[in-house]
Order: sequence, then C-alpha cells, then structure tokens
Amino acid sequence: MTDVPWVPVPDGSGFGIEHLPYGVFSRPGELPRVGVAIGDAVLDLAGLTETGLLDDRRWFASGSLNGFMAAGRAAWRANRARITELLTDAAHRERVEPHLIPLTEVEQHRPIEVADYVDFYSSLHHASNVGRIFRPDSEHPVLPNWRRLPVAYHGRAGTVYVSGTPILRPAGQRREGPAAEPTHGPSLRLDLEAEVGFVAGVPSAAGRPLPPDAFRDHVFGFLLVNDWSARDLQAWEYQPLGPFLSKSFATSIAAWVTPVAALEAARVPPPAQDPEPLPYLRCDEPWALDLTLEIELNGHVIARPPFSSMYWTPPQQLAHATVAGAPLRTGDLFASGTVSGPDPAQRGCLLELTWNGEDPLHLADGTHRTFLEDGDTITLRAQAPTATGNHLTLGEVTGTIHPTPP
Amino acid sequence: MTDVPWVPVPDGSGFGIEHLPYGVFSRPGELPRVGVAIGDAVLDLAGLTETGLLDDRRWFASGSLNGFMAAGRAAWRANRARITELLTDAAHRERVEPHLIPLTEVEQHRPIEVADYVDFYSSLHHASNVGRIFRPDSEHPVLPNWRRLPVAYHGRAGTVYVSGTPILRPAGQRREGPAAEPTHGPSLRLDLEAEVGFVAGVPSAAGRPLPPDAFRDHVFGFLLVNDWSARDLQAWEYQPLGPFLSKSFATSIAAWVTPVAALEAARVPPPAQDPEPLPYLRCDEPWALDLTLEIELNGHVIARPPFSSMYWTPPQQLAHATVAGAPLRTGDLFASGTVSGPDPAQRGCLLELTWNGEDPLHLADGTHRTFLEDGDTITLRAQAPTATGNHLTLGEVTGTIHPTPP
Repeated sequence: MTDVPWVPVPDGSGFGIEHLPYGVFSRPGELPRVGVAIGDAVLDLAGLTETGLLDDRRWFASGSLNGFMAAGRAAWRANRARITELLTDAAHRERVEPHLIPLTEVEQHRPIEVADYVDFYSSLHHASNVGRIFRPDSEHPVLPNWRRLPVAYHGRAGTVYVSGTPILRPAGQRREGPAAEPTHGPSLRLDLEAEVGFVAGVPSAAGRPLPPDAFRDHVFGFLLVNDWSARDLQAWEYQPLGPFLSKSFATSIAAWVTPVAALEAARVPPPAQDPEPLPYLRCDEPWALDLTLEIELNGHVIARPPFSSMYWTPPQQLAHATVAGAPLRTGDLFASGTVSGPDPAQRGCLLELTWNGEDPLHLADGTHRTFLEDGDTITLRAQAPTATGNHLTLGEVTGTIHPTPP
Repeated sequence: MTDVPWVPVPDGSGFGIEHLPYGVFSRPGELPRVGVAIGDAVLDLAGLTETGLLDDRRWFASGSLNGFMAAGRAAWRANRARITELLTDAAHRERVEPHLIPLTEVEQHRPIEVADYVDFYSSLHHASNVGRIFRPDSEHPVLPNWRRLPVAYHGRAGTVYVSGTPILRPAGQRREGPAAEPTHGPSLRLDLEAEVGFVAGVPSAAGRPLPPDAFRDHVFGFLLVNDWSARDLQAWEYQPLGPFLSKSFATSIAAWVTPVAALEAARVPPPAQDPEPLPYLRCDEPWALDLTLEIELNGHVIARPPFSSMYWTPPQQLAHATVAGAPLRTGDLFASGTVSGPDPAQRGCLLELTWNGEDPLHLADGTHRTFLEDGDTITLRAQAPTATGNHLTLGEVTGTIHPTPP
C-alpha cells in the first residue's frame, strides 16, 4: 500500500509520493538549493532543515546534489523515508507546507556537478541500425566487440546543460563525399539522441573495479539525457579516435534525478545475452528497466523507445567502466547511448527514424524533417511503473535549436 | 640580458630565472599552497602574500592553480614580473629568503583541478607509424581527415595524476586475434605516450569559437604529460567510438606548469601544412615549440622526440576544440598526442619504438623490453631554449608500474 500524501498530487502527475526526485532550484534573487518534487510543487529541503524537520549535514543549502549524493545509501534511504513521512503524516502539514513552492515560481538548475561524462552505445537495435546505414554491404551490422563489452567513450563534462538550455547549432568541418573538399559551416545534420543516464554518488578507489552488484551502493539515481549529435561532423571526424566535436557541443540532462529506490518496481529481466558475458560483467539481479521513452518534436510524438530493450544494463556498464582501475567520483555521469527498440516507431534518433535522411519524417502539422531545423524543440519524457501499479514520469529534457551565432 | 637572481641556481638547473614554473606543494602537516620553482627551491607565494610582498586575491593559499589561472593574462604577467623582481633585486632578499623552501622538503601535488581532458593525435610521424603498424597493406598510413583537422578525443579528467603517482597496471578485455575468444586480465601491452599538454586559464563563452590568435589570452601554460595506454585493450575496444578503458586508467602530468611567457623564445615555425588548413585553423604566428623531449626507462634514455616536429600546433588545437561551440573552462587540459619525430630514435611510445613488440628494445643493463613490465619506471623530461641562449627544463613526469591489484 502506498502512503497517501496530504499534498495535492494531480491525476497523471509523474511526481507522486512514490517518486520524490531530487533537483536544484532557486526563487528570484535567492541562491540555488536542493529540493524534491511532489505534485506541482518543490519541497525546499534546505528550508526544512532550518526548521529541524530534516537531518542536515550541509547537503541541501547547496547549488548541486553532489554533497548529498556522496553521503551514501544509508543517508539516501533515511532521507527518502523521512520525506515520505513528512508528506504523508498530516501531523507535519502545518510546519512543512510553508516549504512547498509551486514549480511555476522557481527556476531549475543543473542538478549535478558533472565530474566525468561517459556515453555508452548499449542498444543492440540502435547499433544494428547504425551498422546497416553506414555499412550496408556488411554481413554483420554490429562489430565483433559489441556483444562482448558495453562500448563507450568519454564525452565533455563542461557542456552538460540542464533541460531548457538553448542548443546552439554547432559549426565544424564536414565532407560531402570521398571526392569532395572538406568545408566548414553550421551542421546540416543535427540530431537528438534519447538516452537514460545514471549518476554516481559514492566514490570508489583506483584499482578496485566495482562488480555489478555494487551498483546500488554507488549510484544515486537516473535521469533522462539528450546527447545532441552533429552527424555530418561525426562522419568526417570520428576515425580513428571516435566522436569529438560532433557530440561535445551540448548534452542536455533533466532537472530532476530519480532515486534508484524509486525504480525498484520497474526492474525487469534484460534481453538474453549471447554469448555469455565474461564473469566481471555477470549480474544475478534483473536490471533492465521498464521505462517507456517518448520523443516529442515540436509537440508531435515521433517515437516511443523502450529502455527495457537495452542489451547492456546499467550495473554492467558501471562494472565495465571501472574494470581497468579508474575510480568513480561523485558526479560521474553515465548515459546509455541512444535507446532504440525493435520497431521503427521505437527508434531513438533522427538518423534511424529517417534512415540517414532518406526517408523524411512527416509531422501532423504538414511539415517534414530529415534532421533538426533552427527553432525545433525536442522534448524527452519517460514513464515507469511503480510498486502500486501507478506510474511515475522521469523529469523531462527539453531543448530548442538556435542558429549558429554569427 | 637576463636579470641575475640572488637565489643560488645550480649549473644546469632547468629552473632558472627565465622559467619560474608554478606548482602546488605542501610541507608535512600543512595544507597545499601555490609556489614557483627557482633552482632547488620553491618560493612559497602564499607566504609572500602574507608579508604584503605580492598582490593577493586568494590565488595562492589554494590547493590548485585554478584560481590564479582564471585571473587572466594581465595578472599572470604582473605576477611573473613581480616574482622576477623579488628574486633578482638584492634589496628584497632578506624578506623573501624565509619563503624559499628546499624542494627536498616539500610534497608536490597535482597542480591543477582538471575540468575536461582532451587528447590530440597531432604528430604526423606518430600517426603514420601507427597506420603502418596496424594497416600495413594500406597505401595511406594516415586517414583522409588527418591533414584536415587535429584529430582528438576526450579522456578521463578523474584519472589525471601528478608525477610520481604509482601506475597500477590496468586489467580488461582483449582478444588475441580475430578467431580467438576475448579474455579478461591484466594488460600485456602496457605503453607510455610522451606528450606535451597545455592548460586553459581564462574561460570562453558557449558558441564563441576561439581563433588561434586568442591562444595567449586563454592558455596559462604548458606541461609534460604521459598518457599511459594499454594497447591490447585499445585494439579490442576502440571501434567505432574510440579508446575508452585503454587510456582512462591513468594519465600522469608534471607537478610544474611552465607559463606560456617562459616559452616565447622556444617558438619556431611549424612544418609546412599541405593542404592549407581551412581559415579557422590558420595561424599567422609561428607556434611550433622547440622542446626536445627525453624518455627514460629505468634510467636509460630510450628516445628523444622533438616537439617542434608536430604537424598541428597548440593554437590550432585550441581553435579546433572550440569551433563547434564548446566553451573553455578553467582547468581544461589539452595534450598533444604522442610526440614522435622522423627518426626511429625520436619515437614517443613503445608501440613505435618496438614496432608493436616485433623489435624489442635492448637496454644498456642487458634487459630488453617490448612493453612495460611491473616495476618499470618511465620518466619524461623536456628542454627548451630561453631568450638568453640558456635552457629551461619542463617539470618532469615520472611513474612506476605496479602490478594489477589482486
């Protein structure tokens, strides 16, 4: 049974009592601080600690979640239990209510200070489609290493922006074909990538790889990620060291981080892995997550990628990322790579949805798209089941394309 | 003419009055603070500011150079001029001398907080050798994009360690050949990469690419870098998104950062670039640097790579890194990629020096090496000419290989 909050939570709100995502917000003229979303409001945790209602270790009067994220699982669990109690026990209402602020009255900030940012490539459907698009003559759409390890690369931590930040169209070099001279200019193939990320809270030591079952002890939560990509820049620059400028101009993340505990009911068995992974990647618990993503372009839903279809799971990604000895830092952000399902309507980027521009997407407003145009707005959402048969929705990620500055 | 310091500077010291590199040090039981090296001593800048001899904006009582690096070129210039004055005008000797501490009495720390870490691939000789080793049948050892843009990728900021930090042999997946099953274990092909890095001080704005001639306004200084690499992990993991674990277990940097101003006399014309780069990469000033690197393995010099032979220069690297709109942050570290010259004795990594292990290196102690063994110590040094015909030596980078932890 769920506790019933005394706070009004509108029907269909993704921010019910079973969710309680963390974010950083400010009111006009005030410094950013940490809050938790409930219904249409944010609960001001820094304010609550001043009243003595919540344990305080300087976690919440802060411009990022990092301090609290570093505190560890016992602190996360205790805080979640206490907030649930404060929001459901009517005896607390009088003292707590002054610390509920309508979301419409606050500005939201990037919730985490990003230490390192790693982006995986963990959807078999995405990797297969990319292989078919760029190597149509190959018998094997995915490369031999793909089913053996979760392929990944480091992105740019300094360009991870909070949802709502304008996305400036990147400029750079591209080459139209093998015989053409390269040119410089604004990207002509700007794309989105719908991804799900997780963020590390508790650091680990150098030379001490984390097994998959250490996931809950180190990872604070999940959040939606849009890893904007300039496909024309990428095609020209990426050999042999991988994407650089094509992916490092901007990555958008949600303003809300969903605690791992809120997604326990969304855990489902992952797709079968064949061949069986090496022992350091084996995970006994089912760790696929039943999140249904939704990609909206200018108000039109263009795809619904299922995160449950990912081949490599978050604990496997974490195990792989640390196997060579790199330590984890608080604020390390790991994104899944584009989430694509088996069906065409489940593809997580325009590269796949338009088959590299060959098959434009026709929108209900009569326009069509191959890649993103200036003024386009992309919004990512995701829904997950909760223990009581309700749903929560992850904090959305939205961004509008602005022209390359002159 | 050089000012003559009243501080004793031993013959052959690379830390003369024309150098004045910045670092972070501590004495036993004290907090780290900023200092400048002169001869065999470190000048305690935090201590000097307490006496009023040096302008203080809380730059020097700090565990990193980042605050001072963000202060900008006018502050860097003024501070360098003032330190030169304090160390050469005998009138200051009595008050300054108490703030000179023998280098043997201090511990050195990582001098910068690394924001993002970018590694280039800017030596034509290195890229050509790598192409010949891995694609011996190709007519073109470097790929078509190589002469058009400075190829680069993002590394892991969280594993940038100061010189002297033990290097734990990484473990991970490798595959012996196309028909073999992948296995997991300690890397069998652990390598060094001798590189020269630069570090950003003054941030830039998103969407505002920096032209090459903005280099001096944003870049604080240069330092030696060893980008340790696990070649067996790299070969198996790197397609299609580039190196990940093979290069992110450890990167060693010098404890001393050499100001850009100290290397003015080392600037020389770079090798001719053909084809001519696109306009955003064109640089009027000569910006190759006449640094002669030296790689020492267990006390034996195994190569002397000339940094002046690099195809892409630091200002071109900076221009490229920002052309897509990514802003610069204080502490952004950019490394050159392996520095290799045209001669076999000028190659900057064991991959090239032993031709991927085919041609072992015979050391004067009677041993030989293909790749690094546990217990091996690598030390990188570099020498540059100064305006008066003397030489300065960049802070060395050293590291010893330790076995993979059980």
